[in-house]
Formats: sequence, C-alpha cells, structure tokens
Amino acid sequence: MIIIGERINGQFTDVEKAIQDKNKKVIQDLAQKQVECGADYLDVNVGTSVPSKERVDAMLWLVDTIQECTDAPLCIDSPRRPVVEAALEKVDKPPIINSCQADLEALDEYIPMAREYNSGLIALTMDKDGVPNDAAKRVELAGNIVMKATEHGFDFDDLYIDPIVLPVSATQTQPGFLLEAMQQLQNISDPLPHFNIGLSNISSNTKENHLINRTYAVMCIAHGVDTAIIDPMDEELMDAIITAEILLNKHIYNDDYLSAYRSSKK
Amino acid sequence: MIIIGERINGQFTDVEKAIQDKNKKVIQDLAQKQVECGADYLDVNVGTSVPSKERVDAMLWLVDTIQECTDAPLCIDSPRRPVVEAALEKVDKPPIINSCQADLEALDEYIPMAREYNSGLIALTMDKDGVPNDAAKRVELAGNIVMKATEHGFDFDDLYIDPIVLPVSATQTQPGFLLEAMQQLQNISDPLPHFNIGLSNISSNTKENHLINRTYAVMCIAHGVDTAIIDPMDEELMDAIITAEILLNKHIYNDDYLSAYRSSKK
Repeated sequence: MIIIGERINGQFTDVEKAIQDKNKKVIQDLAQKQVECGADYLDVNVGTSVPSKERVDAMLWLVDTIQECTDAPLCIDSPRRPVVEAALEKVDKPPIINSCQADLEALDEYIPMAREYNSGLIALTMDKDGVPNDAAKRVELAGNIVMKATEHGFDFDDLYIDPIVLPVSATQTQPGFLLEAMQQLQNISDPLPHFNIGLSNISSNTKENHLINRTYAVMCIAHGVDTAIIDPMDEELMDAIITAEILLNKHIYNDDYLSAYRSSKK
Repeated sequence: MIIIGERINGQFTDVEKAIQDKNKKVIQDLAQKQVECGADYLDVNVGTSVPSKERVDAMLWLVDTIQECTDAPLCIDSPRRPVVEAALEKVDKPPIINSCQADLEALDEYIPMAREYNSGLIALTMDKDGVPNDAAKRVELAGNIVMKATEHGFDFDDLYIDPIVLPVSATQTQPGFLLEAMQQLQNISDPLPHFNIGLSNISSNTKENHLINRTYAVMCIAHGVDTAIIDPMDEELMDAIITAEILLNKHIYNDDYLSAYRSSKK
C-alpha cells in the first residue's frame, strides 16, 4: 500500500494556524510523525483560508519546512496549476501531483507537466460536469485517463486513478458505486495504474468516523485500491490496512506481521 | 446480514464440558447472549469428542436445551446425516442444515432432504477431492450446487453457498482466491443464492485473530457475502459488519446506525 499522509492540509485548524504564524514546529512534527507511522508520501495543501495571491508563497514555505526535516517525497495538493508548478520546481524527490480532472484538455495539460517533472499524477474520475453519480461514468472517465496516459507515453506506475470518495452521510449509494467501478477497472489495462482514494471524505459529518474510515478502506483494498490519502497516525486504521494486505498476500504472514510491517517502513 | 452464532460447538471447551455434564445453563447462556448480540440463527455442533454412538443424543439434548430458552432458529451443524436428520425432526422453526458438499450425489441427497424439512442448506464448494486450491474450481463447484438446486426446485432463498474459508496462517493465497471466486459468483444466477462464510477459520493459529476476523469479514461482504457463521459477542466484529453493510446501502445511515441496527434485532 502506498500511504499518503493527509495531515499537512490547511483545512485542519492546527495547520491553518501554523501557516498563518509561520510556525515550523507544528508542520515538522506532523511531517515526522506521519512518516514514523508509515506515510510514504506527505500531502501538502495550503487550504482555502490563505488568500489567492499568497498561495504560492504558502505552498513554498510548507515544502521548504517539510524538506528541512524529512526526505519523504511530497504529494502536491492544489487545484491551481501555478501553485503546483511552483512546488514542482522546489521538491527534492519525485513527487505526486494531486490532482487533475479527467477532461481531455486537463489531461493534455497535466500529463506532460507530470512527465516533465518526473512526477506521479492523481487523476480524478470527474470532469466539468462534476463527480459521476454511478459506476459507469467513473469507468468511462478512467478510460479517458488511461487513453491520454498512453498517448503521452506516461508510465502507468506514475499514474494514480482516483474514483472519488463521497460522504456516506450525504449519499449512501455512492460508496457502493465506487467499489463497483473499482472492480470493473481491474481490467482496464495491463499493467494497471495505481488506484487512489481520498479516504476521510467517506466519514465526513459522521459520529463513527474512525470506524467508517477503516471499514471502507478495507472494502476498497479488497477491490484493488493500492494507494490512499489517510491519517497514518490513526493506528487502528493502519492495522486494518496492513491486515487487509496480508489477507491479499501482499506481505508475508507471520504472527507479528503488524510490527514487521511497521519495522520494514523504517 | 444473516448472522449465525458459532459458539454452541463442542470444539469450544466450555461447550464440550457442558455436553458431558448435561449443564443446561452454559448452553442456554450462550444461546441467549448470542441472540441478544444479533444472531439470527444459532449453530449447533456436538464437536468431535462425543463418541460416535452418542452424537445423535448429544445433538437432541442441545436442540432441546436451546429451544427451551429461545425461539431463534437453529443451524444444524454435523457432517453425519443421521445426526442432522434427528435434529430436523425436533426443531420448532425452519432451520439451516450445515452442511453438504458439492458432489452431485451429495447434492441429490441433501437438497431433497432440506426441501422436505423446509430447511435452508449450506452447500460447500468442496467435493471428494477436498477444498479447491483456486478460485476457478470453487466457481465450478458452485455451478454444480446451483444446477442441482434448480433441478430439485429448491428455493434459492434457502440456499447458502459457502466458498470455504481457510486459515491465512497456513495458506496465504487462499483468502484472495475466495474473494475472487465470490466476485465471479455474483453473476451465477438471478436471483442469487445466499453466500455464507465460516469466518473464524481465517484466523486459526494467529495472534491477531479478532483483527483478522473483522478485516476479512469486511472484505467478504464487499464481494457479496451476506451470511456468516461468527461469534456475535465479538462487539468490534459486529460493528465492522454493520458498518460494511451501511457502506453498501443495506441499512439506512444515521449517526447512531450501530445502536439503530442493534435495536432493530430485538
């Protein structure tokens, strides 16, 4: 499993405040803790409270601050291309761009940019009409993504198709549609791209958010998801993810497989 | 989800001893607790330590003892047909027979017997060659089961196909093969039969048995399993099962869905 730590995101109030105050310690603690808990990448998102004109600066400050304390690669999370590009110029290790949509024009812009910067790319199965209401449209948009990646000679190992998790509290049919789409996508190409989920959205506005997160993570893994943007400091979530992968024979079972997995990350 | 409580089984030492001592209280406590925790059926298995000649008597004593204290229907669990038939004569409510194999001759015996007694039937995807080593053979044997059920006019709502859970500690490829088989079986007929797992086998001889049980339960539900022989007194397991079903839109979401589900069972 490729774990992308979600916590350095201005939508969390501690991070929002740290960006305002230029408080490196808060950011670096979150960076180091997430890596210790198993993050392979660190998502970096300035949030929405930073004024538009200051977003490039805020992103660059976050990138510098994180790279001072860890050599974990970054997942550059912004819907604004100039913010993404500024960060791509700064990163020490091959990052992942998070994200672009599946409109053909967007793919024609983002795939060459990712290739130029030796970056991974998360491509969402949504287009200018928004997030699909069913499995079929997700599969169709994933088809666009795979077609454009092929056309641009983009390495499928750098491609992360994201079927878009929606909150179960808002739309209870969608979590199942996503699994259905994932199942169908297991034959979309050979080799397959990665499949990524932004997990926490599933439990937005719920009381049992941790339970819902780890349960849905396991369901998604059972249908082929191999990358997830999560909080790796949620120990029960990580236990569930590691166990699901053991049950799919991705790591060798032994009685102490939980600690063996964690040691292997260090 | 149809929950079959696994605890009244002579392979557990408390039950083994209760059968020896004719201690009704132990059995009745287990019956009542399992029903309170959400069991729809109670599995009844005399275990292997009862001498062959005493197994019918032991089964009948268990059936009587359980039916004295609860009206939950039973799942009559024995590989020996006379033990099963004796219990079928005694039960107050339509039970489930657990189990028969997928050899054509076995199906020709058990399906008419189940029909005669208005009983459900768990049919295992194994034959005289043993448990399949892959997904394809499981699917083939499920085909036998569906064919024979159709031939005998057996109601698919009374049919429980069981793809046979094997311990992850012994054979790490099998849990994934089972999920693969389950996925393929989602198109085997319309309407579908039920799909059952004997869950606890997955974690036999493991240290993290509860975590492995609940993780695998969720993976199986994500692939169409709707019936499970489990310990319903394992609260975290039940939480995971209820949550997986919420995420598949089987019950209506609300913030207190866990307690709502539990109340609905009472």
